[in-house]
Amino acid sequence: MSAPRFTAIVEALSETVPFVGPEALARQNGVPTLARIGANESGFGPSPKVLEAMAKAGPDIWKYPDPENYDLRHALARHLGIAADEVVIGEGIDGLMGLLVRVFINEGDVVATSLGGYPTFNYHVVGHGGVLATVPYRNDHEDPEALAELAQTSGARMVYLANPDNPMGTWWPAATIEAFIDAVPEDCLVVLDEAYGETAPAGTLPPFNTSRPNVIRLRTFSKAYGLAGIRVGYAVGNKRLIGGFNRIRNHFGVNRLAQVAAMAALEDQAYLQQAVVAIHRANARIAAIAAESGLASVPTATNFVAVDCGQDGAYARRVLEELGKRGIFVRKPAAPVLDRCIRISAGPDDALDLLAEHLPASLKAAYEP
Amino acid sequence: MSAPRFTAIVEALSETVPFVGPEALARQNGVPTLARIGANESGFGPSPKVLEAMAKAGPDIWKYPDPENYDLRHALARHLGIAADEVVIGEGIDGLMGLLVRVFINEGDVVATSLGGYPTFNYHVVGHGGVLATVPYRNDHEDPEALAELAQTSGARMVYLANPDNPMGTWWPAATIEAFIDAVPEDCLVVLDEAYGETAPAGTLPPFNTSRPNVIRLRTFSKAYGLAGIRVGYAVGNKRLIGGFNRIRNHFGVNRLAQVAAMAALEDQAYLQQAVVAIHRANARIAAIAAESGLASVPTATNFVAVDCGQDGAYARRVLEELGKRGIFVRKPAAPVLDRCIRISAGPDDALDLLAEHLPASLKAAYEP
Repeated sequence: MSAPRFTAIVEALSETVPFVGPEALARQNGVPTLARIGANESGFGPSPKVLEAMAKAGPDIWKYPDPENYDLRHALARHLGIAADEVVIGEGIDGLMGLLVRVFINEGDVVATSLGGYPTFNYHVVGHGGVLATVPYRNDHEDPEALAELAQTSGARMVYLANPDNPMGTWWPAATIEAFIDAVPEDCLVVLDEAYGETAPAGTLPPFNTSRPNVIRLRTFSKAYGLAGIRVGYAVGNKRLIGGFNRIRNHFGVNRLAQVAAMAALEDQAYLQQAVVAIHRANARIAAIAAESGLASVPTATNFVAVDCGQDGAYARRVLEELGKRGIFVRKPAAPVLDRCIRISAGPDDALDLLAEHLPASLKAAYEP
Repeated sequence: MSAPRFTAIVEALSETVPFVGPEALARQNGVPTLARIGANESGFGPSPKVLEAMAKAGPDIWKYPDPENYDLRHALARHLGIAADEVVIGEGIDGLMGLLVRVFINEGDVVATSLGGYPTFNYHVVGHGGVLATVPYRNDHEDPEALAELAQTSGARMVYLANPDNPMGTWWPAATIEAFIDAVPEDCLVVLDEAYGETAPAGTLPPFNTSRPNVIRLRTFSKAYGLAGIRVGYAVGNKRLIGGFNRIRNHFGVNRLAQVAAMAALEDQAYLQQAVVAIHRANARIAAIAAESGLASVPTATNFVAVDCGQDGAYARRVLEELGKRGIFVRKPAAPVLDRCIRISAGPDDALDLLAEHLPASLKAAYEP
């Protein structure tokens, strides 16, 4: 019996979930999640004003969202000091990445990234028939010089860099990023993922320069703003690049309450600053908890800490599993060398109390002499 | 100066919004929307239990949604009498259409639809390099026999049919749809858009038969469920077809509160039945308001009425614009013959009071003897 054929690109893919959710793990393991500190969400939550704004807008939920995201785009433009047609809103950074790849990557085109970089970006590249070329991390940092060189030598159409980085939490100062951008050929798109920009030290994020023909910067409300559940990310770049999204995006893709929530979050910068302080404090506590078990932590500019389990990737995997059995949801890097670490998200004290309680036993249970 | 090149497919597209929102119209015209009866939303809103459920889940908004949409998929599967891996959730039917096209359509592949059918479907087809082939409506109905014949003769990889139809509101009984499906080659995917299924008479929707290798049925919470703002649609089909989505979808694309809202809406079938009654009553009132001005209406199985303005498309366009100047937001079909109509969504009495008040003057102002 015949049936509709997938395209050749899709036929070559498998069904997958780039990140298995804690809900799925709880279903699989039969263990409820007691401490949700694995997805770099912010357990400190959003501004109370966000919840108020969503509640107020609730009765309007029968209306489609504004497909132009007009109010939010204009609010972001004012906040960032750019023009409203230099920013596009999407269903999280993940959604925007899918569109970006679709706009620029033909089957067989090379895309440069780091070995161990953001898996969902890779998912979209491969999903559109792109070919990944990678350079390794160096000292737990993405390596901008090597990435720029790879972009040049491989003929890549797109190069990805996260600053601050996920999954390691490391970062480069703005000057290094600007030198990287300068070193990338102008016909190669620089995708600069700044999902963790709000928690980074001053001087990490370069000023916006939307006259650049080949730079897209990705930001989100999912991390420091505490709104992972609303699925709102945005991309900033010059008008031509942003216009590319408007040729293909799902115009009604962003939930109406999400638009309202993001606006309210953006307006409450005082809360954001409080949240960032709480995140920094939680990061320090994670490092302290790790140190109590004799483990080193990688310095971080994000809302998570990569904790070095001190042995190989298999050991770190077992530590993660042991924590999971105890209801502590964390994740870990998958690429060699990085994979010696587990990645623990900043969270409120009750979550970190559970981490402190269960980490020593998990390390012990994972140990195979 | 060089810059990253769009793919050839994207280069050929222009920036667009398939449906200009009432917010944009209000901004352009400087006239606030007094009666929002143009986008086939349900002004009757969702079940009060939905708003309660969203309010309760609000504080969890810092968490990512479950990327597997497990609870909602299982609830839908129970409700529809299918398996949970025979349904996929997406960011509205629009989002699912984009994925569908991406899974099945190569550049240059033919996709069959009706001239005047759903523009967002066409947007996604063209956006992936597909080539549209069309047959005209017949007596304000999509023409299943002609569509099946076109699917055969054109070598189409995909054929689209909405039942009930948008923008005309007409419908076919299940037996006609089943005969249509039987007449389409098995390697051609039938995309059966049932966005308006809940308001259709009994006997309109065929029973589910997920053993069919080539049928995907699209449903939504945006219409009778009164939840256009949450952006949740779903696709039902056999496991292989549904698995195609899981190779490429934006797993975290559906808002967490939207998942909760859809679950609550699905559970309150009593409210849905009330809403459908209110919609039917509103449709009758729209037809009565039209009749008072001497206009005929097309019989409808949806939450809107196509009102025949009795002259050509240019006249109907002017009627629409005159209504717009008066704060009455409606839309209209664009294709020849159909375009003699304006399309008015079922809404609460206050909205239809405004329609009744302003339609006569709008018709008069649009008239050019």
